Amino acid sequence: MDGSDGSDGSGSMAQAKRRQAAAIMARAGLAGWLSVVRETGAGGGSNDPVLALWAPVTVVGLSALLLRPDGRATAVVANYDRVAIERSGHFDEVLAYDQDWRPSLLKALEAVGDGRIGLNYSIHDHLADGLTHGAHLALEHALAGTRHSERLVAAEGAAAELRGVKTPAEVERVRAAARITEGLFAELGPRLRPGATERDVYAYVHGRLRELGLGTAWDRQICPSVNIGPRSEHGHAGPGDIAAAPGDLVHLDFGVLAAEYCSDLQRMWFIPEAGHDSPPEEVLLAFDAVHGAIEVGFAVLRPGVPGVEVDEAARAHLRDAGYPEFQHAFGHQLGRECHDGGGLLGPLWPRYAARSRQPVRAGQIWTLELGVPTARGGLSLEEMALVTEEGAVWLSQPQTSIWMAG
Amino acid sequence: MDGSDGSDGSGSMAQAKRRQAAAIMARAGLAGWLSVVRETGAGGGSNDPVLALWAPVTVVGLSALLLRPDGRATAVVANYDRVAIERSGHFDEVLAYDQDWRPSLLKALEAVGDGRIGLNYSIHDHLADGLTHGAHLALEHALAGTRHSERLVAAEGAAAELRGVKTPAEVERVRAAARITEGLFAELGPRLRPGATERDVYAYVHGRLRELGLGTAWDRQICPSVNIGPRSEHGHAGPGDIAAAPGDLVHLDFGVLAAEYCSDLQRMWFIPEAGHDSPPEEVLLAFDAVHGAIEVGFAVLRPGVPGVEVDEAARAHLRDAGYPEFQHAFGHQLGRECHDGGGLLGPLWPRYAARSRQPVRAGQIWTLELGVPTARGGLSLEEMALVTEEGAVWLSQPQTSIWMAG
Repeated sequence: MDGSDGSDGSGSMAQAKRRQAAAIMARAGLAGWLSVVRETGAGGGSNDPVLALWAPVTVVGLSALLLRPDGRATAVVANYDRVAIERSGHFDEVLAYDQDWRPSLLKALEAVGDGRIGLNYSIHDHLADGLTHGAHLALEHALAGTRHSERLVAAEGAAAELRGVKTPAEVERVRAAARITEGLFAELGPRLRPGATERDVYAYVHGRLRELGLGTAWDRQICPSVNIGPRSEHGHAGPGDIAAAPGDLVHLDFGVLAAEYCSDLQRMWFIPEAGHDSPPEEVLLAFDAVHGAIEVGFAVLRPGVPGVEVDEAARAHLRDAGYPEFQHAFGHQLGRECHDGGGLLGPLWPRYAARSRQPVRAGQIWTLELGVPTARGGLSLEEMALVTEEGAVWLSQPQTSIWMAG
Repeated sequence: MDGSDGSDGSGSMAQAKRRQAAAIMARAGLAGWLSVVRETGAGGGSNDPVLALWAPVTVVGLSALLLRPDGRATAVVANYDRVAIERSGHFDEVLAYDQDWRPSLLKALEAVGDGRIGLNYSIHDHLADGLTHGAHLALEHALAGTRHSERLVAAEGAAAELRGVKTPAEVERVRAAARITEGLFAELGPRLRPGATERDVYAYVHGRLRELGLGTAWDRQICPSVNIGPRSEHGHAGPGDIAAAPGDLVHLDFGVLAAEYCSDLQRMWFIPEAGHDSPPEEVLLAFDAVHGAIEVGFAVLRPGVPGVEVDEAARAHLRDAGYPEFQHAFGHQLGRECHDGGGLLGPLWPRYAARSRQPVRAGQIWTLELGVPTARGGLSLEEMALVTEEGAVWLSQPQTSIWMAG
């Protein structure tokens, strides 16, 4: 109970991210990187995902947590938060206030050299957007009439790099989460017999998660997402009462949260039909098109390539095969969050454009996913890949043919 | 697994809060009440505590969730969120978009009558401040050049009323949480023997919470807060290795989360000293002063009284008894969150002033808490009270004398 971290190794992981953050600031010319938060432990409080990377602390009162490019960190906190922040070990200096945060806030900002001060807000990247609108107004009021109000900028680029470029320890955690997920998929195949419902599959997976002491990579009510046959509605919905029958496709979209890091994979099974050794031609062709599109995107995924080019390569492969336009982005980043913010492998639709234009970087971890409808149910796959200087490498073992269930 | 609510009864509770919200809007002259959120289930996503009251749903894509004073609700969501939102049952109309949220957003706002549209942001109230700065910018961009951009206002007053004025079902849940907490305090007394450490007490309480399937009312690493004797540091810090010795005061600040509602109470024990039947005079006087201050505040707590007047009555009682100025607010609201936002019973210090000026309302639930230092350790008490039209009634059984431990 040191009041700081949720699990073993997070302290040293936060230290590594703090060093990385300082290096990013030095390169980006940021004199300070400021988080303004309050009630961080509460359901309705601030939740700054950038701060969580380099200083995983909780506070109650309005707080200003400031990092400098030399790696020194200062905390401005209310009196009752002082002891926990000191004990966390994440700050070199703690300025506690009783009645008003402004004098301590100004003192902390005066100690920062000239230059821009980054704030965690972003129109497009929710993981660079931990500053609430009200906290932004509170900061503006506190700094009104000082030179600091002119120094504030959005730190979204720095935030995307800090979260997106994984440390070796982070990569290993994601790789472990993928392995665990693949193990659970392997257990599931023999259990997918005619009569098994979406709810049965969901319940089996959750029973195993309890035994293993693991969480889900996203909202547990819709993780795994289970779809059986053509009547099941794809998208983010909970499992239903549909039961597997011969000739159905079974689709799982599933990820675990293990040691604070996520996996996210999609796999396909087919319920065998009497008198047939394999799924119908339509299903085999659909699988090859989807699997092929993922391979095409993987081949294009390397440092410097804008996300939209990776998306378009995969998307065009499906389109050229005569399938309808895929209505989502091809890939998102993965890490502490399943949707880990920053750039996307996506089209230039208004909802994605700003994020899809960002170039891919070495050290990022991506999902590669898309799908097509078939008469036997939706057919959709998702894999995980790490970008290295030399190109992409798989973190999952890609599914290369449809699995016969039962 | 209906994809909407976390526990039994939350669906009907949300319906009651939605009716209450619509009534508040009608009185306040709000034509619409708009939540803009994204990635609500994720660690770094939006977390709109107002939306959670009337429509406890999770979404992935950028979403606009709109309530009208006639009680009708419209959801503008990304295509993959449509099914879950429809199944939630919290919306009369769901407008799903593929590439751009703007056309659906404008359609939803056109359907709202003339008048102001409330947004969930607030400088002072974190539970009325679920809109991130980036999401606010995204909304401004989407509405630029339309008449809607002139209609937007902060809904903090409406949010404080909706959260603060509890329904009868909410009051019962908080009352139950208080009873459970009092039961755990009663178990603890005989276990507070010389040699027991702060960590031992913490571990016992958490073992019981596991058995009972309950959560903590705030960050579990510092709930309960346990302080033994004069060397222990008060404030939001985890338990230490300090062991109880004869003559020590033992202080717990503790609350449970039961059926989604919180308790928050402080209790005091004394470790008996050989040859003495009771604590020393200094401790007895301190207890009477603190208990007396709470009684004085309770007597003043009624509808229409500004929070600062309740705080000042209690604070002055301690000051007049010769104790140092209490460095916190006297009371906060309690409900789904331990610090349940809205007004405070606090002084007019800059950090509290805007919230302390708000008048008390019938239906609110308050903590009443303060403390003083003594040579045997900090002495601090906290009770819970409901405001009725006729005045305050206790939700806890106030501690009226110090408990002898062991």
